[in-house]
Amino acid sequence: MSECSYIQVSRPVALPDPSASCEAPHLDAARTAARLRALLPAATVEVLAETFRVLGDPTRVRILDAIADGELCVCDIASLVGMSESAVSHQLRLLRTMRLVRPRRAGRQVFYSVDDHHILELLRLAGTHVQEKPQMPEPAR
Amino acid sequence: MSECSYIQVSRPVALPDPSASCEAPHLDAARTAARLRALLPAATVEVLAETFRVLGDPTRVRILDAIADGELCVCDIASLVGMSESAVSHQLRLLRTMRLVRPRRAGRQVFYSVDDHHILELLRLAGTHVQEKPQMPEPAR
Repeated sequence: MSECSYIQVSRPVALPDPSASCEAPHLDAARTAARLRALLPAATVEVLAETFRVLGDPTRVRILDAIADGELCVCDIASLVGMSESAVSHQLRLLRTMRLVRPRRAGRQVFYSVDDHHILELLRLAGTHVQEKPQMPEPAR
Repeated sequence: MSECSYIQVSRPVALPDPSASCEAPHLDAARTAARLRALLPAATVEVLAETFRVLGDPTRVRILDAIADGELCVCDIASLVGMSESAVSHQLRLLRTMRLVRPRRAGRQVFYSVDDHHILELLRLAGTHVQEKPQMPEPAR
């Protein structure tokens, strides 16, 4: 038993060599430096990811879809998406924090619209992407 | 005590009236029906939200940003984003499942690129949105 342990410890172990894990021709120093310069700043990456995270919820997508054709009050949004007004209000507050919806106050009334054309275009593009593509991954070619 | 309970039960309770919670002029039946017809199908909403959820992670945003200017092997992506190749591979598998990246096999080498122009445009639009806007919510007007 002890001999077996000794053999196990002393036997050369085939550790993977990280430098050998990728055989592709690599970027040279100049192109690596150019790519590094072009990367988004860390703070932008964080806000971008947080924006996508807030969009990554079916209820919030439905609310944005409901107001994509023009501003609506909370009642009408709740009616269109089949949710309570308090649940819609909660989601609208979150969407507003990330500047994905914009409130317009008219006296005691508040109407909500999609914040700007970027967000409308973003929803349209993502919708086109998911509707054009089959949902199962294809094998690597 | 029992009298008190009796009084509490018999006293008219001021329940909120949902119809009174929103004083805005509401959509009429025809416009409500038109908006309902224009809503995205439930299955599309789910995939859209899942796509945004996968994008809602700083590491995955950084990987997509790294390959936004053209395909790269895992080594180069790992080098650009400062992560291990195994961590990058794990994220690439997830991104590929949601068809956000596309692998191209050349012999034993695999290069990854952003899946299509929709995703590139989506990243560009979201980046423009978050860079144009102050990050604190503005008060309702």
